Amino acid sequence: MATVPVHPAWLPDEAWRPIGSRRVRVDLDGTVRDEVRDACARHGGTLVTNGPADLVLTHGDGDGFTVTREPGVTTVAAATHAGLLHGLFATVRLGEAAFTPAPPLHSAPAHARRMLDHWDNIDVHPVMGQVERGYAGGSLFWKAGELRHDQLRRIRDYARLLASIGINAVALNNVNVHDTEAHLLTDRLADIATLATIFRGYDIRVHLAVTFAAPMLLGGLDTADPLDPAVRAWWAVTVAHVYERIPDFGGLLVKADSEGRPGPFAYGRTHADGANMLAAALAPHGGVVHWRAFVYNHRQDWRDRSTDRARAAYDHFTPLDGDFDDAVILQVKHGPMDFQVREPVSPVLLAMPQTRLALELQVTQEYTGQQKHVCYLAPMWAEVFGVLPPPGDVVAVANTGDDPFWTGHPLAQANLYAFGRLAWDPALDPSAILDEWLSLTFDPGDGLRAAFHAIMDESWRTYERYTAPLGVGFMVRPGHHYGPDVDGYEYTPWGTYHFADREGVGVDRTVASGTGFAGCYPYPWNDLFESVTDCPDELLLFLHHVPYTHRLRTGRTVIQHIYDTHFTGAAETERMRDLWRAVKPSGLLTPDLHARVATLLDEQVRSATEWRDQLNTYFFRKSGIPDNRGRLIH
Amino acid sequence: MATVPVHPAWLPDEAWRPIGSRRVRVDLDGTVRDEVRDACARHGGTLVTNGPADLVLTHGDGDGFTVTREPGVTTVAAATHAGLLHGLFATVRLGEAAFTPAPPLHSAPAHARRMLDHWDNIDVHPVMGQVERGYAGGSLFWKAGELRHDQLRRIRDYARLLASIGINAVALNNVNVHDTEAHLLTDRLADIATLATIFRGYDIRVHLAVTFAAPMLLGGLDTADPLDPAVRAWWAVTVAHVYERIPDFGGLLVKADSEGRPGPFAYGRTHADGANMLAAALAPHGGVVHWRAFVYNHRQDWRDRSTDRARAAYDHFTPLDGDFDDAVILQVKHGPMDFQVREPVSPVLLAMPQTRLALELQVTQEYTGQQKHVCYLAPMWAEVFGVLPPPGDVVAVANTGDDPFWTGHPLAQANLYAFGRLAWDPALDPSAILDEWLSLTFDPGDGLRAAFHAIMDESWRTYERYTAPLGVGFMVRPGHHYGPDVDGYEYTPWGTYHFADREGVGVDRTVASGTGFAGCYPYPWNDLFESVTDCPDELLLFLHHVPYTHRLRTGRTVIQHIYDTHFTGAAETERMRDLWRAVKPSGLLTPDLHARVATLLDEQVRSATEWRDQLNTYFFRKSGIPDNRGRLIH
Repeated sequence: MATVPVHPAWLPDEAWRPIGSRRVRVDLDGTVRDEVRDACARHGGTLVTNGPADLVLTHGDGDGFTVTREPGVTTVAAATHAGLLHGLFATVRLGEAAFTPAPPLHSAPAHARRMLDHWDNIDVHPVMGQVERGYAGGSLFWKAGELRHDQLRRIRDYARLLASIGINAVALNNVNVHDTEAHLLTDRLADIATLATIFRGYDIRVHLAVTFAAPMLLGGLDTADPLDPAVRAWWAVTVAHVYERIPDFGGLLVKADSEGRPGPFAYGRTHADGANMLAAALAPHGGVVHWRAFVYNHRQDWRDRSTDRARAAYDHFTPLDGDFDDAVILQVKHGPMDFQVREPVSPVLLAMPQTRLALELQVTQEYTGQQKHVCYLAPMWAEVFGVLPPPGDVVAVANTGDDPFWTGHPLAQANLYAFGRLAWDPALDPSAILDEWLSLTFDPGDGLRAAFHAIMDESWRTYERYTAPLGVGFMVRPGHHYGPDVDGYEYTPWGTYHFADREGVGVDRTVASGTGFAGCYPYPWNDLFESVTDCPDELLLFLHHVPYTHRLRTGRTVIQHIYDTHFTGAAETERMRDLWRAVKPSGLLTPDLHARVATLLDEQVRSATEWRDQLNTYFFRKSGIPDNRGRLIH
Repeated sequence: MATVPVHPAWLPDEAWRPIGSRRVRVDLDGTVRDEVRDACARHGGTLVTNGPADLVLTHGDGDGFTVTREPGVTTVAAATHAGLLHGLFATVRLGEAAFTPAPPLHSAPAHARRMLDHWDNIDVHPVMGQVERGYAGGSLFWKAGELRHDQLRRIRDYARLLASIGINAVALNNVNVHDTEAHLLTDRLADIATLATIFRGYDIRVHLAVTFAAPMLLGGLDTADPLDPAVRAWWAVTVAHVYERIPDFGGLLVKADSEGRPGPFAYGRTHADGANMLAAALAPHGGVVHWRAFVYNHRQDWRDRSTDRARAAYDHFTPLDGDFDDAVILQVKHGPMDFQVREPVSPVLLAMPQTRLALELQVTQEYTGQQKHVCYLAPMWAEVFGVLPPPGDVVAVANTGDDPFWTGHPLAQANLYAFGRLAWDPALDPSAILDEWLSLTFDPGDGLRAAFHAIMDESWRTYERYTAPLGVGFMVRPGHHYGPDVDGYEYTPWGTYHFADREGVGVDRTVASGTGFAGCYPYPWNDLFESVTDCPDELLLFLHHVPYTHRLRTGRTVIQHIYDTHFTGAAETERMRDLWRAVKPSGLLTPDLHARVATLLDEQVRSATEWRDQLNTYFFRKSGIPDNRGRLIH
């Protein structure tokens, strides 16, 4: 089979020159030494076993790693091979600066588990495709129903990319577990073992998404009741078999009682009953269950204004705080809805002190341009991390596939990169992360670097401007979720999101007159969100229904804000496109990468213009209020 | 393979008793005699060759057939076997009355060709399924990529049902001709020959939908240019091969330059060039080409108000009047759009005196409830026939599949029945046709007959009431077209259909200030449609953009009409459901048929309620005008 050339992402050969051109000693066996040997082979350096060395990678103490830069020798020390591996990649990031004397650098991860969830299917789903919400080609792991044995080298490269940004856990299949994929747990476990061997080389543990109905589907039982002894025994035996084959298996991931998936509700059991059953099977082996809190009624009646999808996870799970076993990690999306471009932080993340929590982010750009639009998400994630106590786990839905650039849009690589870096250290500055990624990926000159920043730094807020004003979400085409459709979900069973009429717009989620969602937050959030005057502008319509003439904290009216941000946002995409056109391919910025980004920016301009015109027309037709600057509204 | 019991539709054994219990003589060889023999075998009558007979089917003159009822003997006479066959079925319809003295009955078809277009695919299309816009199961003809050799008996029964209502031509495959189906013209012609043999027994000729790109796809040419000699030669040879195999082959059906299909535009040629090329290949063998006039720009920009899909066929085709060869039949949908529940008659049908035209109707209920709703369409078709000069051809898209009731909804059989009867005689009264269908299908008592009429007679207008007010169409979910989505198509490339804002609603298609569509009609239609006061209420919003407070000819305002008709329409479905619940299965009204209709009526009530609430809420939110009767609008 012909090999498609694959982009090196942020680990081009060039990034290894500072290390690979020196004398390096590695005191631990494993991948660290293999990487150094390979780098030295490429760049003329030497892997030494004794004698003078410019770089020493050696045993140390504590969590993470320490880089000590003294004249003549730089030392990276860590207690484990994983720590040393992360230290090695930190040294790659430092580049030549790694060999300039500087104060010691100690780095330990803020979150113990930094995980990617792959929504990959083995079979191509007739609607969702092979990777659900995937915008980067087919699966890296599966093709035509089988493991991609011809791509194991590429999977190794992928593991290396993930390890280089600190990822240490990967779930290998879609949380919507269909029939074929259910069998990965049992008779297709060999595939998982093969992948585990590859990821293990980079100190990444593999996890598996399973269906709650597995005892029936795979075990031939007539129930999946979590309190049924036969069901519990089936899970115990099945999980034990997994650990026989994969001793460092990470654990299971479950989407239960959500969007049609089976779960404990069918047996009158709670989610704690369900999760604890799996925890009991996993705990003896050191595994965990990631139990998703994404549970809501997707058969709502839009006429019923008392049902609020934003409350659903809170109402389902906070009463269970304290009921979950230690091996259960409740995996909570960052916002109460579903990865919209702007949401408040989920109140569940602030309300379950006795439960192990994982924060779930979405690197795949389902609602943020589907990797056709530049939308650098790190600023959004930094805001989320800024208001949260660090959970033990950070999880993200992957944005990768078998695309030659890994991520469809080449610049979407920056999102994966930033996710790993923020999961390790949420205090990092998004623009600094971008800079780091740029240096590794393109080694750009000042002008090019400035162009990238001008295109990417603000791109999330730009996307917000031309799509969703003031916290209104879901104004997208149902199904595929690309492009505008203001009323697309307004009357569907999936939830209702704007309630726009000729007087005003927004969802009243106050305690005083709405769904009470604002009251799910601790002080001072509850007070802030409850008050129409104190509520942050960017969340106003998520929390309040207001007249179009309501004055924002900026002094602008809501309707004028809608017009202004849509004109501005669309114009910003034109500026981004023009900046990119002025860039010339050279060096690591290859002509094919440049051309793909240029084509995608054309689409981004087209799409942003469509968003601008549909949104402005929709709200002009409803409000009847003209733009105060007289711009064209159709 | 197990045989699924199939409903006899309007030809139950019982309907044959008046003929089958008598002495009958048949003077022509063929299916007429076979049918009579079978009926006599079932009911104790005798097929006689000489001597006294109660019924004589014999040679006659002229078009159609004549039934002469004299004391002691009824005579059916026709010049052809087809005429005699139609006379036989007319005798079945008469029942015992066929044997009561009465004045002679002569019947000849108003339209020479009465045709069904099947939108069946051989392969199951990933989105459209096996029968495009089919709501009655899989295809009668194809399964798993092959002709259904195990169903040839059922296909014969189908041919018999069609012949019994006067259908004499059938196109066997979808007008959107995909790769597999393209091969029916050449290497899979044996399948068509097999089907032709079956249909020939009932004097029905088969036609084939072909792709304009066939010379490239099948013939290996590098063009499909209709003026290219190699292309013309390929068609001539290919068509000649078809006639070698199927001497009475009807002809070809083409959808060209429409919704992505290939066509002559790619070569800078006109539709006359394209159609005439096929006509040249067909004419020597007596075949025709049905060339669809359904050509429009499906890549419109909603911001461009000058493009009007309603004008498209008129603008494309009327300049070509006189350019088409005799063997070309231009097949025109009854309305200018696409089978909405209410449209004006297409102006193309009134504007091409030098062109052979076919009127195209849609028996499959794509936009009229998808055979989940009772919607008896004969009253709509009768209105269309009422304003048209009879074209030579009437064509309809079939509503049948391998469903045990043929049509999904058992009562949708009445639409197929009525199409055939109206195509034969457009002056028939829709309620009388329904009565005829009822008598044959259910032989109902007076109470049951009244219930059927109460449920079905007005069901088209009921459907119009709870869905599309005053000629606005396309307020459906894009893609599948079931259920409401008022803005679903408003901003799409497929066309824009209501332009509702806070002041008013409707599309200005006047000459004075709109797209000029009203001017495409001859006098007096153009004047009527141009005038906002003279325009018929039911088409007002198709032709004019008016304020919500505009007074209709009924005296009601537009907004109040919207509310009233939606409340009334939904309430009517409840009445229909309750009437059906009061009906008890007995005789030919079997319990399974009764149960299926009951279940479907529940869905119709649910769906009508959804239409009512979404439409009322949408227009209330936009207009701000309350219902003057204070009913609940959400």
